[in-house]
Amino acid sequence: MRILLTNDDGIYAPGLLSLYKVFYPLYKTFVVAPESEQSAVGHAISLNSPLRVKEVYRNGRFYGHAIAGTPADAAKIAIHEILSEPPDIVISGINLGPNVGVNLLYSGTVSAATESAILGLPAIAISLNTYKDPDFSYAAKFTKRLIKKIEKTRLPRGICLNVNIPALPASKIKGIAFSKQATIPLKERFEKRTDPHHRVYYWQIGDGFLNEVDKDTDVYALSQGMISITPIHYDLTHYPALAAFTKDFSINL
Amino acid sequence: MRILLTNDDGIYAPGLLSLYKVFYPLYKTFVVAPESEQSAVGHAISLNSPLRVKEVYRNGRFYGHAIAGTPADAAKIAIHEILSEPPDIVISGINLGPNVGVNLLYSGTVSAATESAILGLPAIAISLNTYKDPDFSYAAKFTKRLIKKIEKTRLPRGICLNVNIPALPASKIKGIAFSKQATIPLKERFEKRTDPHHRVYYWQIGDGFLNEVDKDTDVYALSQGMISITPIHYDLTHYPALAAFTKDFSINL
Repeated sequence: MRILLTNDDGIYAPGLLSLYKVFYPLYKTFVVAPESEQSAVGHAISLNSPLRVKEVYRNGRFYGHAIAGTPADAAKIAIHEILSEPPDIVISGINLGPNVGVNLLYSGTVSAATESAILGLPAIAISLNTYKDPDFSYAAKFTKRLIKKIEKTRLPRGICLNVNIPALPASKIKGIAFSKQATIPLKERFEKRTDPHHRVYYWQIGDGFLNEVDKDTDVYALSQGMISITPIHYDLTHYPALAAFTKDFSINL
Repeated sequence: MRILLTNDDGIYAPGLLSLYKVFYPLYKTFVVAPESEQSAVGHAISLNSPLRVKEVYRNGRFYGHAIAGTPADAAKIAIHEILSEPPDIVISGINLGPNVGVNLLYSGTVSAATESAILGLPAIAISLNTYKDPDFSYAAKFTKRLIKKIEKTRLPRGICLNVNIPALPASKIKGIAFSKQATIPLKERFEKRTDPHHRVYYWQIGDGFLNEVDKDTDVYALSQGMISITPIHYDLTHYPALAAFTKDFSINL
């Protein structure tokens, strides 16, 4: 099996390396990832600037290709241009920090997986639920088990898995929850500051979720120490609303 | 009614101005938009850089606020910080060029509308199906009619409308199609070049769609000279796959 690893924390991130260490001995493993951190870039792609590609070495050995672009760019150029043939699966991560709820929309990690799904490949996004002192070892091992399972059962075309793993010792993890994406709004605000030249600027701050969350969601599962797995896709159509509009909504040209 | 206008082509774009001219005489109209063009940035937000806000004047009169950020940033800061109370509806556009099929994922225009929906507001994204010599006048008039209709019937919470308008004289437009987002892949490639310093770089080129498209999609409707309207949302969960995984997929911790 041929595995493509990518992420949004950049090619030098330890979360990506933790996956490489697990998969390199087992499969033909390729690394194509953004050169620098690309958190919260969502599904941005670079159409107005050229993409540079750089070879990256680790301990004197070739590690992968760094892309001066976004995670979606990295997935696209890896699949279309860098790899001689498409990988069998794409893994994006392990992200430093969770990707649950409406944060999926902002997540470069998730977008690299979605982009791969658009290109017809099975893909998973993996995130660890902490921003500091991360220990990626259990998450990497779980990812290996998940890939072995997917290798047998396959993913439906166009679907990728968004996986969030508690930052807990293996013995403390409560189980696995297949859950839906929460849609509650974020607790967010803008902090107004003045620069040394007396000009105003704002910092955007997102800080958890605003409301109590349903028990069948990714946010809830993760908060309970469960691994959350959400099958996601890239069709934004709201089908019930489409049916209702088709039936009821009339407007003149 | 209070209307917030935004876009991804930047606050100086003629497509935005065409909406302003139509809505300013009718409603309390606010403009908060990116300072510079932000096409293909998707749902990116600025967490690592501060946001500057600048007042923009047209013909000596206050026009709106320019944000040194993305369309999603503009929607967020407008709603949370700049406007004294939330608008009744958000309109993003009129975009220069269509936003149909998987391009929705890359579209800043659509993301500004989706972001507004996340924040609990009715929102529509409007795009004109041409990249050159745009005449926004019919599209702006149609948007006005659509807003008047929505003012009466309301949009379901969390839903926004993605509207694509043919670049045709009003008399040539064939009708209105409520359609789903096409999911066929793009025809895309990377063009490899060498810079004057002998270093390689790539241009990413997306050029239409790869396969024939289903007749109930936005791509098809627009290609037939119809106005396409697609109700979209921000829950990426694939529910049939979720049900199947919950039933059938077992994996050890």
